[in-house]
Amino acid sequence: MDCAKKAMSAALTKGPFDLVIRNVKLVNVFTEEIYPAEIGISGGMVAYVTAPGEGGLSGAQVVEGAGRFAVPGLIDTHVHIESSMMTPRYFSEVCANSGVTTIMADPHEICNVLGKQAFHYMQKDAERARMRILYAVPSCVPAVPGLETSGAEFGPVEIAELMESGGAGLAEVMDYVGVANCSARMSAIVEEAEKHHLPAFGHTPLPPEPILQAYAASGIASCHESTCTEETLAKLRCGMVVECRESSACHDLEALIPALKQLNWPDNACFCTDDKEPDDLLREGSLCNNIRRAVQLGMPAVKAIRMGTLHAARLIRQPRLGAIAPGRWADIVLLDNLEQFAISEVYVEGRLVSKNGKLLEPIERDALEETEQMNTVRLPAAPTPALFTISAKGDTASVHTIQFNDQVPILTTLGTEKLPVKNGHVDISGREDLAFLTVLERHGKGGEHTTCLVKDCGLTHGAVAATISHDCHNLIVLGRDPEQMSLAANRLAECGGGVVSVDEGKVTGLLALPVGGLMAARSVEEMAPDVLAIKQAVRALGMKGQNPIIQPGSFALTVIPEVRVSNLGLVDVLAQKFIPVVAEED
Amino acid sequence: MDCAKKAMSAALTKGPFDLVIRNVKLVNVFTEEIYPAEIGISGGMVAYVTAPGEGGLSGAQVVEGAGRFAVPGLIDTHVHIESSMMTPRYFSEVCANSGVTTIMADPHEICNVLGKQAFHYMQKDAERARMRILYAVPSCVPAVPGLETSGAEFGPVEIAELMESGGAGLAEVMDYVGVANCSARMSAIVEEAEKHHLPAFGHTPLPPEPILQAYAASGIASCHESTCTEETLAKLRCGMVVECRESSACHDLEALIPALKQLNWPDNACFCTDDKEPDDLLREGSLCNNIRRAVQLGMPAVKAIRMGTLHAARLIRQPRLGAIAPGRWADIVLLDNLEQFAISEVYVEGRLVSKNGKLLEPIERDALEETEQMNTVRLPAAPTPALFTISAKGDTASVHTIQFNDQVPILTTLGTEKLPVKNGHVDISGREDLAFLTVLERHGKGGEHTTCLVKDCGLTHGAVAATISHDCHNLIVLGRDPEQMSLAANRLAECGGGVVSVDEGKVTGLLALPVGGLMAARSVEEMAPDVLAIKQAVRALGMKGQNPIIQPGSFALTVIPEVRVSNLGLVDVLAQKFIPVVAEED
Repeated sequence: MDCAKKAMSAALTKGPFDLVIRNVKLVNVFTEEIYPAEIGISGGMVAYVTAPGEGGLSGAQVVEGAGRFAVPGLIDTHVHIESSMMTPRYFSEVCANSGVTTIMADPHEICNVLGKQAFHYMQKDAERARMRILYAVPSCVPAVPGLETSGAEFGPVEIAELMESGGAGLAEVMDYVGVANCSARMSAIVEEAEKHHLPAFGHTPLPPEPILQAYAASGIASCHESTCTEETLAKLRCGMVVECRESSACHDLEALIPALKQLNWPDNACFCTDDKEPDDLLREGSLCNNIRRAVQLGMPAVKAIRMGTLHAARLIRQPRLGAIAPGRWADIVLLDNLEQFAISEVYVEGRLVSKNGKLLEPIERDALEETEQMNTVRLPAAPTPALFTISAKGDTASVHTIQFNDQVPILTTLGTEKLPVKNGHVDISGREDLAFLTVLERHGKGGEHTTCLVKDCGLTHGAVAATISHDCHNLIVLGRDPEQMSLAANRLAECGGGVVSVDEGKVTGLLALPVGGLMAARSVEEMAPDVLAIKQAVRALGMKGQNPIIQPGSFALTVIPEVRVSNLGLVDVLAQKFIPVVAEED
Repeated sequence: MDCAKKAMSAALTKGPFDLVIRNVKLVNVFTEEIYPAEIGISGGMVAYVTAPGEGGLSGAQVVEGAGRFAVPGLIDTHVHIESSMMTPRYFSEVCANSGVTTIMADPHEICNVLGKQAFHYMQKDAERARMRILYAVPSCVPAVPGLETSGAEFGPVEIAELMESGGAGLAEVMDYVGVANCSARMSAIVEEAEKHHLPAFGHTPLPPEPILQAYAASGIASCHESTCTEETLAKLRCGMVVECRESSACHDLEALIPALKQLNWPDNACFCTDDKEPDDLLREGSLCNNIRRAVQLGMPAVKAIRMGTLHAARLIRQPRLGAIAPGRWADIVLLDNLEQFAISEVYVEGRLVSKNGKLLEPIERDALEETEQMNTVRLPAAPTPALFTISAKGDTASVHTIQFNDQVPILTTLGTEKLPVKNGHVDISGREDLAFLTVLERHGKGGEHTTCLVKDCGLTHGAVAATISHDCHNLIVLGRDPEQMSLAANRLAECGGGVVSVDEGKVTGLLALPVGGLMAARSVEEMAPDVLAIKQAVRALGMKGQNPIIQPGSFALTVIPEVRVSNLGLVDVLAQKFIPVVAEED
């Protein structure tokens, strides 16, 4: 309230203000009007908005708007900072330069690794960010309890505790079937949001109507997984807020904008980025890309800006955000051009943070020890080649395989291959279409591992290892030769995680992600070329899939059909049970 | 959550439901679509909405919609139940019959009389209401501390306590100048709303821009006092929700609808009734009248219904209200005609409460002792004629007068009259334009009184007494003859308050309001003719003003310029200080 009082006092006397932004064309997201204005700011808040007059408002600092458009700072309602592979403060650089002044981040990935400690680390790091980072409390840590070993488990107790330590919502509730079925765990978790007066955010891709309606009835307010018109309309009709996503992997706007247009731009829609990698962030920015894309697809610019600001603020229940109006935080973007969303200056709480696409002050570097504390590759011993083999008796064995789907890389099917057994191990040397895939527990919880076979993933030589493997982020290694796989795993353990490729006994690419095995304390300019390089190195091994460094880990995604692997075994996803790696020996 | 779980389970299996409403034209307030539907209801909530199909959904009870329109129950965001002169459960009858299924009531009047006890009484009585009554905690008890004796005082401590005992918001914050100036009392009170995650509702008639913007910056979310286009636009631009009022005294829609139209029906607007008397309620209903009036004034019916439901639910922060959608309370109105808002059936939490304008079950009568507990006319002694005189020395005296303004009855001006003094008392027998006005403290706090003079109020004979006198509701008596005034006051004390008129030594009209001196436990059909009768009886004494029974009490309204009277003395409103009744004696 102290900031509000400063703003109120300044409003009452019409200044002097801490800062005055003169001569702008203000985009009023409440009324959808654009009019000439000057803005008085005090206490970090918008205090007074008035028509430009003789002399103008007085302020300790005066910025000449020169007829530029003033729009509220953008709000990304759902984003995983970890997907940027940068720590929060470095991620904030690209946000601020994109006109994004608030994000509702879901630190789901790092919490699966390090639990509550990670949540607090992310909060602490965000204190040095250049825009506002709010954290929703992850709802599915782990995604599927019992089928894999995560670094932590969040039940209602942990979730309540994090809500009481600054959590600003309940993050994407992915177990939508559990919610719809009122499972004890998910019901208790969703109830915590209501108890704490916090919004619960959703995730329900292409649900059948009964599941969608049951899910909506739980009180979960939104979904960012809509990918077609019909689905979008169904969710809007249920009263859910549709968070329209443009991520690295998903480009949903093209399908969603026609649905919104059909309803004459409803107020239950906003934007999000979900997962964006450094190369995409560097090329097209963060949420500003959603705005530009929406306008290209036919949405009026003022409607798009309203969606990315006011609608978002309502969803995340932050009444002091999302507009340029008295008592709202002075998060303001000055644009040279409205339709192109050409960003000139970005203010957060009345402070200029970014100008012409550059931060005013560079991000503070981490002290080395801070980063090292987050080294989370905790293995009981250095992985030997023996780990990356499949034992079998007799001369041949029928072995289950995870069949890669080239058309829909996110889906897999279960297969079986009859293979020779040599020296007690399944031999794939004669089969270029097969590769070993090992998931190795890396959270210091015993180091259990499973090795299985993947078919048709494209990798023909060398090996790739990664600690990015949704959602438990165990150490995953893919290769055809146990020696190469062992080399990759050991190299990754040394550097605290990330992604590594090896070929012919040499490391051919390394993206070190020492913070939780998921992030690095480096800027987007530093990260983007390294990410492109490791992608190229992995693709050089033959790896298929849209994203060669995410693809290996996706074989461990135990929530998406039909078959996946965890450190505990091969998983039949629909049945939610284990199946043996070796089906039959003889 | 238990009700939600019932709804979710029923949705998941597509029934059977507790209740199915078949074959309706559903008005979807999220998408502004109207489409054929059937509605499955379980646990009192909407569980499933689907297109009418073969056989249809199955339910323990099935209602044939027969092509009627299904719209969400209306929500009145600001209403004083006390103005209906009925206790909450009787007021609920007219609401339910009007399609109003939720009100945000401000029990401001009765709390000024009886404090926290009254808040709890109102809550308890509401348990037997036929629709949902939410109570906002009154913010200005009393309106002007120090200038009058109210029955109670609410500071931040009492307000927090009531918020924690089920209060659902902070009621109209009337001291807008105090808020804008960050007065310690008002700042602390407004902060309680933010602390408790509750909405704060506003009241700021025609504020100058700096005051409006400072007021909006406090976080107060709405205002129901807009009466012209310019004012409406200014508030909407600040992000405030404009609550468009049609009350007994104020018919604001005619001025406000053009402003909303100009902005193409913005989503920051809703409806309220504020104060409505029984005769108006019986004639035109409650909030349904706002809807009908808005449509007559050119607003599309679906927009008007959206305003009266979804927009209102958002303002009062009740995400389970305001729409016919999964997980929302099944508050549903079936309409024979959309444009005319012709109400056929009203459901609250899935129970049919009103059909063809009549309750299904009559309101339960009070036990007599309940009503008697609320008898709040607590005088130290029976008022004698001597109380209703003005003492003065000498032969003549200059006496201050409250000048009635026939053009703008809500305003008064200060006058002075030179009058004869007889037997130590000011004599007005020769002046038909003057009357005595006495305010007598009636809350059991000492019984202090002030008698002064009113000029040109019209009353030429008899006397009128009332316990409705905003905002402290002390006993007010107006007359030319102390004997008649004493008779009126005593009669009123006997019946526990209300309004009484006497003439020539006889009671000519009596409206008994034994509950707090403000309400009666009687139905609108019983009350309306009695209210019309007492209005006629008071007007027969010559009384001017729009509302002859509210007018006497309005002379005690110490917040509106220029001069008023409280039990403690004559009040200069702008200076907020006392002035003597007798200006000069000689």
